[in-house]
Amino acid sequence: MAPLVECVPNFSEGRRIDVITAIADAIRESGGQVLDVQADAAHNRMVVTFVAEPDLAVDAAMAGAAVATDRIDLRRHLGEHPRMGATDVVPFVPFADLPMDVCVGLAHVFGGRLWKELHIPVYYYGEAASRPERRELERVRRGGFEDLVEHIADPDRAPDVGPAQVHPSAGATAVGARIPLIAYNVNLKTTEVQVAKDIARMIRASSGGLPNVKALGFALADRGLVQVSMNLTDYRVTNIWKVFTAIREAARDRGVEVEASEIVGTIPLAAAVGVIKDAVIEPAFQMDQILEKKVWAAE
Amino acid sequence: MAPLVECVPNFSEGRRIDVITAIADAIRESGGQVLDVQADAAHNRMVVTFVAEPDLAVDAAMAGAAVATDRIDLRRHLGEHPRMGATDVVPFVPFADLPMDVCVGLAHVFGGRLWKELHIPVYYYGEAASRPERRELERVRRGGFEDLVEHIADPDRAPDVGPAQVHPSAGATAVGARIPLIAYNVNLKTTEVQVAKDIARMIRASSGGLPNVKALGFALADRGLVQVSMNLTDYRVTNIWKVFTAIREAARDRGVEVEASEIVGTIPLAAAVGVIKDAVIEPAFQMDQILEKKVWAAE
Repeated sequence: MAPLVECVPNFSEGRRIDVITAIADAIRESGGQVLDVQADAAHNRMVVTFVAEPDLAVDAAMAGAAVATDRIDLRRHLGEHPRMGATDVVPFVPFADLPMDVCVGLAHVFGGRLWKELHIPVYYYGEAASRPERRELERVRRGGFEDLVEHIADPDRAPDVGPAQVHPSAGATAVGARIPLIAYNVNLKTTEVQVAKDIARMIRASSGGLPNVKALGFALADRGLVQVSMNLTDYRVTNIWKVFTAIREAARDRGVEVEASEIVGTIPLAAAVGVIKDAVIEPAFQMDQILEKKVWAAE
Repeated sequence: MAPLVECVPNFSEGRRIDVITAIADAIRESGGQVLDVQADAAHNRMVVTFVAEPDLAVDAAMAGAAVATDRIDLRRHLGEHPRMGATDVVPFVPFADLPMDVCVGLAHVFGGRLWKELHIPVYYYGEAASRPERRELERVRRGGFEDLVEHIADPDRAPDVGPAQVHPSAGATAVGARIPLIAYNVNLKTTEVQVAKDIARMIRASSGGLPNVKALGFALADRGLVQVSMNLTDYRVTNIWKVFTAIREAARDRGVEVEASEIVGTIPLAAAVGVIKDAVIEPAFQMDQILEKKVWAAE
């Protein structure tokens, strides 16, 4: 089987079904194997998840961006989610053992084409960032379209590709390469939400906890439990086993037991292999030791 | 992607390269995707591992058996490994989420064809056994070819397919369906081999330990460690996490720490998913939550 890349473009349309369908169809017809389309009316935003062979992935993302540029006008766009472009964010994500370098390269090829073919200025973020302060998407997108229109001429807001001028209706696009996020929750056998909030604060990166962990504490009132709800933004640095054991220990210090944990949605095979390496101290375990991987990758 | 089955036929030839090659080639040319061929001269035995779509798998195994029947004469065969057939053992093994039922069905189709097309009597073992006492391969094959020639007319030795008479040169074949074996070792930080031997005895099924676990204790003298070396014969019953934690606890009771563990060769994705379910208490985690599985299985 040829190597694949995953691409998860976000477009600023979550209400008009015809536009949502046209964007997804354009990606599909250009060779993207669409795994998922999520549209959210409140956010007025859609997220397409597709895989494709690396070269085709750029074509497929371009096809989606062309429709979005044609059909979405940010001057008349309202929604709760911060956004700066009709094609707002386009991350390329490693699939199976595709190296991150390849994704960075694809992001740069796609960014070049966005400007050349659609006249949309581009900011590189994540592993594709060309300035360290642009690694964080939130920082690149701060203030959104309206703010960017006003400040794009500021020296620190210059696009990485294209001149310091937004596309009149389609704004600008953040193009990046990143590892897949993992959404992971740990439920604790207590009704005291403060326990979950305290542990969330303790383990999250922003308050000096584990790197690449975002965490919040919630009550699961109907179940008589509380939950530490997390995003693991780089499982290569902090994976499921590490946060699970840190939370279990912190809970025990408070006299509370773990009820269960929950992996939300999909995780990459490499992350699953990593959990096994950590949990049973098997540092040499490799993805190719998964029987099915060996067969699927050979086809 | 069409569903696949794994098949691991064992043939009684480990010395004549031309015969070994002819058997593997016949399997390959009939549509088997050969993953591995192991031939052992001392055992005078070869093991082919291949995958194929279920119908093709029967054809491919038949093609190998036809060559083996033609080229191997058990009346002139010597080797250390117990054997009763030129085509000695043919297990069908689930691949990815192929149900075990399908493997049992394939075993029965293959067994019927072995008798009809090659006149080889067949014993069903493992999950394909038609008598409970034939579930264990060792019991079916006891005494090997020479013993079977003498005793095949005994009421309890009657084949499941074919009359009570061995094929003159090719003997009889054990055909089965089974879950993949997992070879798994845990190394302990001590030089006292008795610790490994004691723990192996404690956890193995045959002395009342964990079901579906075979275990032995060894010294790893050059590394200053000892090892509990295991075969997990049904990971659906006893998986890696359960034996790892049982050994860790038994070692701690003796004041010994685990150094590391080692998964030898491949494990099925379902077993890897099972380790994660156990280790981080995530009972709902499923194979389809592995991103790559979702894509590969859809192709």
